[in-house]
Amino acid sequence: MRMCIYPSYMSTEVPEPAFESEGLLPAIAQDADSGDVLMLAYVNREALEQTRETGRAHYYSRSREELWQKGQSSGNVQHVEDIRIDCDGDTLLYLVEQEGGACHTGYESCFYRSLDGDVVANRIFDPDDVYE
Amino acid sequence: MRMCIYPSYMSTEVPEPAFESEGLLPAIAQDADSGDVLMLAYVNREALEQTRETGRAHYYSRSREELWQKGQSSGNVQHVEDIRIDCDGDTLLYLVEQEGGACHTGYESCFYRSLDGDVVANRIFDPDDVYE
Repeated sequence: MRMCIYPSYMSTEVPEPAFESEGLLPAIAQDADSGDVLMLAYVNREALEQTRETGRAHYYSRSREELWQKGQSSGNVQHVEDIRIDCDGDTLLYLVEQEGGACHTGYESCFYRSLDGDVVANRIFDPDDVYE
Repeated sequence: MRMCIYPSYMSTEVPEPAFESEGLLPAIAQDADSGDVLMLAYVNREALEQTRETGRAHYYSRSREELWQKGQSSGNVQHVEDIRIDCDGDTLLYLVEQEGGACHTGYESCFYRSLDGDVVANRIFDPDDVYE
């Protein structure tokens, strides 16, 4: 008989996030109500733990090499309603309630442009009012 | 006066996908109708070009180190209705019409489980019927 031991927060059906093999994992933030995909950022284990403990989305900045909480300076916090994990455990999906907009440019979503150059959304805040 | 020259397919508002600085870029596939986030995979320049030329989602497999078309073996093709690019040009969003399901496990979305172990979707096909 083969015995498997899983951490208490997992069922046998859920893969552990693949931090060891993958390093940082991408986390997609999706608006839980509208379904809009808001942004993609990266998480390490600590960022995921902070997200679960506080209910607010945390990420790891590859450029600044530090943990950050979304909205810490802007106030545009993401309240995380659920976290999904994909079939092979190497991508996370944060379902969030977004305060203000997710994008530092003033749009609700960072995906406000098509690759052909069409702007497909309206600005909902003035970045100059939010970011110093 | 400052002169700027941009490639013909871009407007001044659209960043070029950051393949050079980032290597492969993550591409999120979202169901254009339901808004469900289906999967995340990676693209190189060739995969993006094939996607735009054919209208069918192509990705680059990091494990197999090759270009692949989603659904090439399973028939679960993604017809790409639009491609969005995020504010800093390092993530793409494919808006797709998904034939069958996106996940090789038989679910519509690869994100069919919460991190707490709840399965939040129903299987829509039997993988044994689709994958050899």
